[in-house]
Amino acid sequence: MKRAEYERQTALALEYFDRAGIILTDAEKERIEVADFGKGFVNELGLQLLVYVNTDRVCAKEMVLLPGQTCPEHKHVPTGGQAGKEETFRCRYGKVYLYVEGEKNTDKIKAKLPPSDVSVFHEIVLNPGEQYTLSPETLHWFQAGEGGAVISEFSTRSTDETDVFTDKTLVRATVIEEE
Amino acid sequence: MKRAEYERQTALALEYFDRAGIILTDAEKERIEVADFGKGFVNELGLQLLVYVNTDRVCAKEMVLLPGQTCPEHKHVPTGGQAGKEETFRCRYGKVYLYVEGEKNTDKIKAKLPPSDVSVFHEIVLNPGEQYTLSPETLHWFQAGEGGAVISEFSTRSTDETDVFTDKTLVRATVIEEE
Repeated sequence: MKRAEYERQTALALEYFDRAGIILTDAEKERIEVADFGKGFVNELGLQLLVYVNTDRVCAKEMVLLPGQTCPEHKHVPTGGQAGKEETFRCRYGKVYLYVEGEKNTDKIKAKLPPSDVSVFHEIVLNPGEQYTLSPETLHWFQAGEGGAVISEFSTRSTDETDVFTDKTLVRATVIEEE
Repeated sequence: MKRAEYERQTALALEYFDRAGIILTDAEKERIEVADFGKGFVNELGLQLLVYVNTDRVCAKEMVLLPGQTCPEHKHVPTGGQAGKEETFRCRYGKVYLYVEGEKNTDKIKAKLPPSDVSVFHEIVLNPGEQYTLSPETLHWFQAGEGGAVISEFSTRSTDETDVFTDKTLVRATVIEEE
């Protein structure tokens, strides 16, 4: 991702945090992360996030999804002697379409199919104040509705580097190219 | 605590959540907890809280402290084979005066001394967007400033029943008396 694109995404993320009433310190505003999963079309496949805390035992972060933006399908496997990451997503703003393993519960999913492989279609819709807890090693992907979304995540330790993506062409670490 | 007092505290908590821009479902609004620590003067010594999730591994909750209200000094000890609770407090609204073990770093603490025993005076002031992570078994107490406070807590499993209070006359479980 080019530096200019990174700057654009973080500026958008700040607007969404503001709409969600989430107050950040200046230092936090400077360390918002953007994931483009190595594909180069971040507005379709991507995520903006701020990690509040990530210790050996606990992680909390805020995530912004732009309108229609998708976090691609993945799961969290055992890492460093600990069980896979357990996480709760809580919608703070907008609407989230979350898909997890389990019986297909709709004929027509509300999300648009993303430009990356997906295989699970048990649909959960999260509106502000609604949340869902994922067990470790559960495949999942999620997409914001038309108005974007802000999501709080409460979890065990985040170890993004061991996330297993369904689409093997994706990579979690973002490379920012200085121009 | 009388039922009417419980209703009064939860109504106040809802006002603070609203001011902090925190959206709750109707079901969540119905299960806000009030702790009076068995003393009967909840506006001085007390806490209003809502637990979002509390699994074997992770807990997240929101807390409201009314103006000048104090959560009394306590620590979290190993419970059920797990290390003591580790927790991060993040101020979302108002001002929090937090006191933890460690060198006294002010001649005159900003909080008023609460009507319960306290022994630690290392002061941390949290404004909106600021946070602090407590290691397990660290004595701590906290009080809201004049405008009250809303605090998010991200932690390992909450086991309030094993909290160790400095003031041995306190009890964590609240009894609501129907009138």
